[in-house]
Amino acid sequence: PQYASTGLDVWTMMNQVAASVNAVNLGQGYMSYPPKEFIKRAAQEALVENTHNQYAPPRGRPGLLEQVGIHFANRLARPIDASSELSIHAGANEALLSVFTAFLEHGKGQEVILMEPAFDQYTPNIIMSGGKPVYVPLRVQCADKDPAKDVISSHDWKLDMEELEAAINENTRIIVVNTPHNPVGKVFSREELEQIGAIAARHNLLILADEVYEHLTYGVEHISIATLPGMWERTVTVGSAGKMFGVTGWRVGWSVGPAELIQPTLSAHTRIVFTSNTPLQEGVASAFKLAKENDFLNIQRQEYERRRNRLMAIFDDVGLPYVVPDGAYYLLVNAAAIKIPNDYKFPDFIEERGANFKLVYFFIKEFGVSGIPPTEFYSEPHKHLANDYIRFAFCKTDEGLDEAAKCLQSLK
Amino acid sequence: PQYASTGLDVWTMMNQVAASVNAVNLGQGYMSYPPKEFIKRAAQEALVENTHNQYAPPRGRPGLLEQVGIHFANRLARPIDASSELSIHAGANEALLSVFTAFLEHGKGQEVILMEPAFDQYTPNIIMSGGKPVYVPLRVQCADKDPAKDVISSHDWKLDMEELEAAINENTRIIVVNTPHNPVGKVFSREELEQIGAIAARHNLLILADEVYEHLTYGVEHISIATLPGMWERTVTVGSAGKMFGVTGWRVGWSVGPAELIQPTLSAHTRIVFTSNTPLQEGVASAFKLAKENDFLNIQRQEYERRRNRLMAIFDDVGLPYVVPDGAYYLLVNAAAIKIPNDYKFPDFIEERGANFKLVYFFIKEFGVSGIPPTEFYSEPHKHLANDYIRFAFCKTDEGLDEAAKCLQSLK
Ligand SMILES: CSCCC(=O)C(=O)O
Ligand SMILES: CSCCC(=O)C(=O)O
Repeated sequence: PQYASTGLDVWTMMNQVAASVNAVNLGQGYMSYPPKEFIKRAAQEALVENTHNQYAPPRGRPGLLEQVGIHFANRLARPIDASSELSIHAGANEALLSVFTAFLEHGKGQEVILMEPAFDQYTPNIIMSGGKPVYVPLRVQCADKDPAKDVISSHDWKLDMEELEAAINENTRIIVVNTPHNPVGKVFSREELEQIGAIAARHNLLILADEVYEHLTYGVEHISIATLPGMWERTVTVGSAGKMFGVTGWRVGWSVGPAELIQPTLSAHTRIVFTSNTPLQEGVASAFKLAKENDFLNIQRQEYERRRNRLMAIFDDVGLPYVVPDGAYYLLVNAAAIKIPNDYKFPDFIEERGANFKLVYFFIKEFGVSGIPPTEFYSEPHKHLANDYIRFAFCKTDEGLDEAAKCLQSLK
Repeated sequence: PQYASTGLDVWTMMNQVAASVNAVNLGQGYMSYPPKEFIKRAAQEALVENTHNQYAPPRGRPGLLEQVGIHFANRLARPIDASSELSIHAGANEALLSVFTAFLEHGKGQEVILMEPAFDQYTPNIIMSGGKPVYVPLRVQCADKDPAKDVISSHDWKLDMEELEAAINENTRIIVVNTPHNPVGKVFSREELEQIGAIAARHNLLILADEVYEHLTYGVEHISIATLPGMWERTVTVGSAGKMFGVTGWRVGWSVGPAELIQPTLSAHTRIVFTSNTPLQEGVASAFKLAKENDFLNIQRQEYERRRNRLMAIFDDVGLPYVVPDGAYYLLVNAAAIKIPNDYKFPDFIEERGANFKLVYFFIKEFGVSGIPPTEFYSEPHKHLANDYIRFAFCKTDEGLDEAAKCLQSLK
């Protein structure tokens, strides 16, 4: 099958390119710093207890279900029944796949709407589940500005609601709403979410809300589409402990929604991985509790805002424009100004992936700072929209960002 | 889809029934005792290091790949290239799903041969991947014995090779070979594996060798079918750290085989869960190393043999015959002698699952010792073959087994 024949995924590929020149790795969105002491301690303690080393119930460890329930009850301003409206997953990715698996069927021509750029795992996950991804691009909509010169904000990337509705037909089943958005950093406004929700309701569609960056917004409010009137019934919201607590390797995520939607999601999850790992579910449960005492989410948000501002300042300094992100931890930099020598030799695995991979490869090799080619987040007909961009992650140490600043001096 | 609409999986259901009467839980195959100190310490130490909390490469952490490679090189008597012939998974179950996903396609009518009884996750995993399971039963083949009275051994359960070959047609793609076998405890002999291998070769089929109980055989040798002449090229072998180190909740498994088979398996894995959890991959890598110093696998095998003998003695004492398992940690008990009162009331979720679920439910409620209804491991036309049996697990403490012995006294 298609997804199985793909060569290297973009993450492994770019990590390898970065390692080959010992680049400052601002590519994949993992943290280059250790988790807070209280988070590590939580996991270590979980390993001391016997019952925490055997299978968890497929739905998840009771203590973690309780904590995620409390978290969502606050966020969604709605009580959550942790025994029916929640499931724990082996990472948010497996939660997404479980939702697609639960609600799509092979051979029926069912369609799923994605907003491009779209996190690269959605497409294969939809195809594996029998669906057909249909793409509606977010477009820079500020007629008076030039993305290669002017300051553009992530909220200037807009969804054309007429284009969205035109993409829907009688085969459409799901709309994926990713907010805060990877890689744009867009945080969908209440008005935008209301419009999307109204369209979903009009066509009786399920909404898959990928909110793994829910805890990271800068000066704007994150709104869960499930909290809007009439939306709870048709929405599964996905979250990630890896992103929230800075431990992307723990593989603990969750899905939340009405029991009628979570039951099939849980059944799919049970067949896909049976259950997520037990010790780190316990670790995340403790982390949720200790996060409150430590005012962790607030402090973390401030740290990320500082890192975002620092990375923006670095690119200001060297004169490359970027999309100011309202959320998440990525910066889309417009690198149209970078000129690649005509005779530059690319290895085949880059050459065959086109202009944007070449730009990113050249940038990594030349400046020693790695990023991700956002073209990977676009479907074939729209890949050119990414040509000028490189995505950099700022979930990184101050030293890493300082080092990147030094590397980029030659750009001046 | 079918697998998503199923209600409770048998594991969760039987754990709930067991808990409702506070039964001695000999149902699901998890350990009721803590992992050895050196294994817990290995995982705790892994959590101290920063780099061990972020995404592992999808193929796995280098240190674990190395250890699994060494393990297989010994077992398979063949050097393993850990960078191409191995992948780490989020549990052996996800490895199985990755193989099915990689090598099956929807809408092509491709078939997979399973030997019944067959671990219950195979069927939904095959269906999710677009395949059609085709079942060939293992049958008690010792004409002179009565399973309800005489001692039967797991090697008396035999595959009829003509029946196997007759089940193959031009749509067949994969044969699943589970040895040591869950739930029968059968360890396939070299001769049997050679016959299966010859049939696979004759029809150019892939072999999926599920060897998660490879480390547990009693007086017989475990043989990996991949080690037989000509078999490496067509075999993916799946293993489990959860079973090997007594930590079923860690969710670390692996697949091993020729690069041409592991590459698609890894691609599927990358799309299904992206990667397995990092800290416990490190924990398993250390556990592999320390296992040697501690002579762990030998000692563990002896412990399990003792537990097996203890559980067999318990059923001898109360006069219920069973299948003597040559491997794994399950005992299939023939409970035909148990008579259920005509007016016994079963809850709907049991009643609707038929005779074997009723027998197991009655047994749990009446005697306070829980097991699993093996009918769940059979396809519709063969479900009756399990009617008289209950599967008990002996990966349990001595105290648990003593307690079970006490509970069962009323059977005398
Ligand atoms: C599969 S990589 C996980 C997503 C992420 O962290 C990224 O977009 O960098
Ligand atoms: C999905 S339960 C895992 C398998 C097992 O341990 C069992 O057969 O009991």
